Amino acid sequence: MALKFLNIPEQDAIRVTADAIQRQVIAILQAVKVPDHHALITADILTAASLRGVDTHGVGNVTGYVQAIENGAYTIPQSVEIVSESATTALLDCGNGLGFVAAHRAMELSIAKARQHGVGMVSVRNGHHIGMVGYYPMMAVAQEMIGMAVTNASRSMRPAQGAHPRLGTNPIAFGAPAGKERPFLLDMATTTVASGKLSLARRLGVPIPAGWIVDAEGEPLTEPPAQRSEAWSQNPLGNTLEQGGHKGYGLAVMVDILAGVLSGGGFSAQLAGGENMTWTLAIDIAAFRPVAEFKAMMDTMIQELHATPPEPGAERVLVAGDPEFDTEVERRAHGIPLHTTQYEAIVATARRLGAQVII
Amino acid sequence: MALKFLNIPEQDAIRVTADAIQRQVIAILQAVKVPDHHALITADILTAASLRGVDTHGVGNVTGYVQAIENGAYTIPQSVEIVSESATTALLDCGNGLGFVAAHRAMELSIAKARQHGVGMVSVRNGHHIGMVGYYPMMAVAQEMIGMAVTNASRSMRPAQGAHPRLGTNPIAFGAPAGKERPFLLDMATTTVASGKLSLARRLGVPIPAGWIVDAEGEPLTEPPAQRSEAWSQNPLGNTLEQGGHKGYGLAVMVDILAGVLSGGGFSAQLAGGENMTWTLAIDIAAFRPVAEFKAMMDTMIQELHATPPEPGAERVLVAGDPEFDTEVERRAHGIPLHTTQYEAIVATARRLGAQVII
Repeated sequence: MALKFLNIPEQDAIRVTADAIQRQVIAILQAVKVPDHHALITADILTAASLRGVDTHGVGNVTGYVQAIENGAYTIPQSVEIVSESATTALLDCGNGLGFVAAHRAMELSIAKARQHGVGMVSVRNGHHIGMVGYYPMMAVAQEMIGMAVTNASRSMRPAQGAHPRLGTNPIAFGAPAGKERPFLLDMATTTVASGKLSLARRLGVPIPAGWIVDAEGEPLTEPPAQRSEAWSQNPLGNTLEQGGHKGYGLAVMVDILAGVLSGGGFSAQLAGGENMTWTLAIDIAAFRPVAEFKAMMDTMIQELHATPPEPGAERVLVAGDPEFDTEVERRAHGIPLHTTQYEAIVATARRLGAQVII
Repeated sequence: MALKFLNIPEQDAIRVTADAIQRQVIAILQAVKVPDHHALITADILTAASLRGVDTHGVGNVTGYVQAIENGAYTIPQSVEIVSESATTALLDCGNGLGFVAAHRAMELSIAKARQHGVGMVSVRNGHHIGMVGYYPMMAVAQEMIGMAVTNASRSMRPAQGAHPRLGTNPIAFGAPAGKERPFLLDMATTTVASGKLSLARRLGVPIPAGWIVDAEGEPLTEPPAQRSEAWSQNPLGNTLEQGGHKGYGLAVMVDILAGVLSGGGFSAQLAGGENMTWTLAIDIAAFRPVAEFKAMMDTMIQELHATPPEPGAERVLVAGDPEFDTEVERRAHGIPLHTTQYEAIVATARRLGAQVII
């Protein structure tokens, strides 16, 4: 959900087309020896995030991945291997490479297994950042399936009533197709906000609302911190015990179990920054009932939710995915706005690596 | 998570043994023609809830189920039928009977399918209340599997920024086995609190915290209302948009899709009060990696979470399921406390139906 105070001011943005920036990201990744197919997958996921307004997970991050490749944190080219497999399940090793590549393969495998057997479930170890988690369920939705993906991350969230961070923002994404309506697409950190919103607020020089992060005494902080430390934590979704903070915390542990413990790759508190394990699920709707009937009921549900009278001051009631689908329409028409500093960093990276400058 | 101000005062409680109250519930259900096996399942789930301190979903509710059976809202004896089935999936019809019976069968089937094929997933339509949702994942945990269950319900939660209720409290339960440590068991409404806490507060005559429910203008109410209406709604987990209310709302719709739309039984806004659809999932850990290794990592994770220094004023950091496991130990030793009015209602129901009075 976009919060208006975190929008990039238009005068600080340079608009680029999705096609140009995607080709730019591919060229940069190829320049650091990422195989073509892997570069294509990664660029597609990063561009999809930028198109949908999920700028914290968008093309601007390519400079960070290049850095991780250059300093040896990532192994390139990577080898994604199947550690164990059954008719409905698989465990993949990401080969310490780009997380996108293994997560994409995991969802492809989940979909193939679901097509044959009704359900497919794949877990990934030895992995890194997978970008916008909502991308992966959308792969299943495109195949008329229900899709789900979760990924864990190193310490940023405190357990309910804890003084220090022990969980990642551990997001959950879930998508389901509709008929005439747009698909349902939930993509949420289990913290009150995704951690990228903190760095974005810092870049924009704006304070953050009380409730997002706290110090070790549990006191709210409103200045976005410069870097991770044990001295402050993000709050779990729900915040206080009275308002359900133990639920956001519990969901984060659920993600850790599915992504980190089931894969054996490790849970949040064990992970170094930049390590991420992933879990994907695809459900063949047709195994339960006719897809057309499912989609018709999805349409009715989405229409009824949209028709809910809004509370005073609110414009309309949205359904998960609405703001991102709207943003995609606008950005396909007018281009993706990159913050000038991001734009310049991407161009400088391309130049430094001898890659073609396309944007 | 138990909130102390909602505890039943000991002087208003009568303690009964788990064994006695379970036999009492069976006798009462048998008196309204519930088949023995169905009565046993229902009584076991209700007693488990009471033992674990989930009193809003406990044995006290048996009088309500009797009423639903007597007024014809439930069909007894019910016939649970398989509508469609694959190696890994099934769609069950609950036969308009006790929700417990079909949900229990759904998880049994999920476990059997997971044992054979790695994953099992079953959805239930034409159903009613399934009690404490956490019971069902625990069935999988007892078989060294990961278990998950969700169930939807009629309107009580508003969508984020909505003026009226359109979603149920739509809970999510998830369990995973550990080795030396107790299992992880998350069991959470996707509202800030389970709706039973509102009626409990009303029965105890205590105000509720701002943030749990709001009127149609979005203003918080602190007096627990007497009955459901369009004039007030429960808030989704997260409350405001700024603190992530759209996430609790999104999770509730996810539950509606899995339980209501995938089954075809209907989503929250379509349901009459007392209708509930269910979805269960079992994951065979051994399909991914050795169960002993999984459980050892679960132990390490749980120990690290427990070792998190608590914030000032908090006693210790808990893991989902801890308070309920603690309560179970205490109540197995000292009996289940029933509020005197509940105790009397149960005894009166038994007498009226000519069932043996056991408690």
